[in-house]
Amino acid sequence: MALIVQKYGGSSVGDIERIRKVAQRVIEAKKEGNQVVVIVSAMAGETDRLIGLAHQITEMPSEREFDVLVSTGEQVAIALIAMALESQGYPARSFLGAQIRITTDGVFTKARILGVEAERILEELEKGTIAVIAGFQGIDEEGNITTLGRGGSDTTAVAIAAALKANACEIYTDVEGVYTTDPAICPEARKLSRVSYEEMLEMASLGAKVLQSRSVEFAMKHRVPIHVRSSFSQEEGTWVLKEDEKMEEVLVSGITCDKKEAKVTISKVPDKPGIASKIFGAVSEANVVVDMIIQNVSAEGYTDVTFTIPQTDLKKALEVVRRVSQEIDAGGVESDSNIAKVSVVGVGMRSHSGVAARAFSALGKEGINIMMISTSEIKLSCVIEAKYAELAVRVLHEAFELEKTKR
Amino acid sequence: MALIVQKYGGSSVGDIERIRKVAQRVIEAKKEGNQVVVIVSAMAGETDRLIGLAHQITEMPSEREFDVLVSTGEQVAIALIAMALESQGYPARSFLGAQIRITTDGVFTKARILGVEAERILEELEKGTIAVIAGFQGIDEEGNITTLGRGGSDTTAVAIAAALKANACEIYTDVEGVYTTDPAICPEARKLSRVSYEEMLEMASLGAKVLQSRSVEFAMKHRVPIHVRSSFSQEEGTWVLKEDEKMEEVLVSGITCDKKEAKVTISKVPDKPGIASKIFGAVSEANVVVDMIIQNVSAEGYTDVTFTIPQTDLKKALEVVRRVSQEIDAGGVESDSNIAKVSVVGVGMRSHSGVAARAFSALGKEGINIMMISTSEIKLSCVIEAKYAELAVRVLHEAFELEKTKR
Repeated sequence: MALIVQKYGGSSVGDIERIRKVAQRVIEAKKEGNQVVVIVSAMAGETDRLIGLAHQITEMPSEREFDVLVSTGEQVAIALIAMALESQGYPARSFLGAQIRITTDGVFTKARILGVEAERILEELEKGTIAVIAGFQGIDEEGNITTLGRGGSDTTAVAIAAALKANACEIYTDVEGVYTTDPAICPEARKLSRVSYEEMLEMASLGAKVLQSRSVEFAMKHRVPIHVRSSFSQEEGTWVLKEDEKMEEVLVSGITCDKKEAKVTISKVPDKPGIASKIFGAVSEANVVVDMIIQNVSAEGYTDVTFTIPQTDLKKALEVVRRVSQEIDAGGVESDSNIAKVSVVGVGMRSHSGVAARAFSALGKEGINIMMISTSEIKLSCVIEAKYAELAVRVLHEAFELEKTKR
Repeated sequence: MALIVQKYGGSSVGDIERIRKVAQRVIEAKKEGNQVVVIVSAMAGETDRLIGLAHQITEMPSEREFDVLVSTGEQVAIALIAMALESQGYPARSFLGAQIRITTDGVFTKARILGVEAERILEELEKGTIAVIAGFQGIDEEGNITTLGRGGSDTTAVAIAAALKANACEIYTDVEGVYTTDPAICPEARKLSRVSYEEMLEMASLGAKVLQSRSVEFAMKHRVPIHVRSSFSQEEGTWVLKEDEKMEEVLVSGITCDKKEAKVTISKVPDKPGIASKIFGAVSEANVVVDMIIQNVSAEGYTDVTFTIPQTDLKKALEVVRRVSQEIDAGGVESDSNIAKVSVVGVGMRSHSGVAARAFSALGKEGINIMMISTSEIKLSCVIEAKYAELAVRVLHEAFELEKTKR
């Protein structure tokens, strides 16, 4: 008998008809002899409706109360799913974060899970009950309701799968799995049957919207096998697993694209120790997360520093950077939101060379100018002009023959 | 410094504009130097919306999950009120039933409050925080969410006022207070400034919809002064208090009317010991609550038994009664939904005689036939034909000169 955790997102429980279908799917897994735990997000649109109410009250709602408010979305969903299961004759019980002590830190609206009380769930499973658990929410040590931020239900699912030592954590979504790239941009994109945690992490943080990166980190740490699949079909999806040798045989597993960043350049920065920390210390204090940073070797005691940040934080960042720029007596500050970051990801890059050369050459042939480059062990990212984003994705997909991928 | 509990019903928090007004009112009480605890119901319509979702899933939803579902209504309301207070610069904190351990028995959908953890609330009040508490909900000893049934937020308010030894429990509603009778039926109706717990209990259970009877019982037991008043005006409303001598000087304090009962008559019942218990035992097992019971002295070894029950239970009751009637070899069973119960209530009746005579004479003058009579120390009820209900109310109101009431 296996223990399966199934997570259904907001679109999978978007209306009563879909909730009934989810219940049917859960029952199938139960009928196959599994112990089943279901994690549910709020019905599609509900979280936005609640946020709308808060913003009608005040522009800057109390974050503690915000979490009290939006966590009701999942509560409604678990009650309805449990009702649907019970009405079909399958014993089920809903649980809130507080009821199974999903403890988190005290950072409202983006809390991190610290632990889960597995015993309470196992007790129910042993009685043959299906446990239906609210995603996205927990409680801090004072008993306040916290939420995990958008996409947090994935993390709930993985944390619970880890605590229960589940055989699999199935993430049901509205796509068939993880693709070599976005099929909307590149029709040749292929579904991957397996990716490693490391690759999935890079893809998640690089803009593939399938899984929240926190949930992948958690799964990697606790070795939880994730199965990303469609709630509308019975097809196998993509397994996210520990890297193995076979995975390394494939050079590149995917191409991602992110158009939500902006770049900021500070020119003629005096090349002295402590300057970089002055700049990025100030940016970080303003709660702006910096992604890529490029600093060229200096010429005549000066250097240019370029970095990328989320577009939504550009205004805030520019204020800070302009102030610091004057303090350190730099030349000036320029910014550009009209950029895209395309990335090539694959664990095979560790043991194969020539990936960068092949990528640059492919982009070069189409006349796409590369503005910034950044690499990690299993990733190569290039910042280019936004208008070339889709073309770059298709060109790179072809250059690495991903339409023939066998993963 | 006084400690005030304020309870706002669903219509008082029906939309964002009204929620803002409630916050304003709470702030006024705070500014006057009081410690303030606010109890809130779900926004008007929300509970019905949630019940609708449940019934789309299944006709007979799991009662445990039903409570998980509908309790979200109050959760949304407390978060919004607390946000509104905080946005005006007044520290506030919302609390769910579970967070301040409003413990109840385990009867889902109509649980009874057993206790409240006052310390947690007092701690916040002493810091100057306004506590905003979800009405209608609690948890049983296993930590399951329970709800108290319609109108349960009144009981929450009184229970919390009792636990905190509050100076007053203000119940905000859409009427100005408790009236001598329904002003929609009798334009001469007058607002009472004071009624006793006993009178309010009779009025509540007789059909005056101002307060849930459970909440009045609770207030009576713990001597909580209730102030029923309008959330749309600053007028004093009606105080519900321990009876005092002055109250007894007034013969009758109110006339109520209930058109939601039906009567059932079993004719030619053999007059033997144990027969009544057979009949009412069976009715009670079917979970039907009997109100009035009349049995005349027997003639020739037979008697007729008549009783009243809620109209909504009539079908269920008739099935049971017809079966029992055959078992005990009675003559037959008849029923009538076309009735109304009008009642005269007043603590003064204890020390004054002649109330019944005056009531019968007033009804008789208008040719209104009395089908059943029932009395208690402070109440006289008559069952009449439904079509005379409003007329009877006006006639009795006049007969006892309630338009001149000085309470």
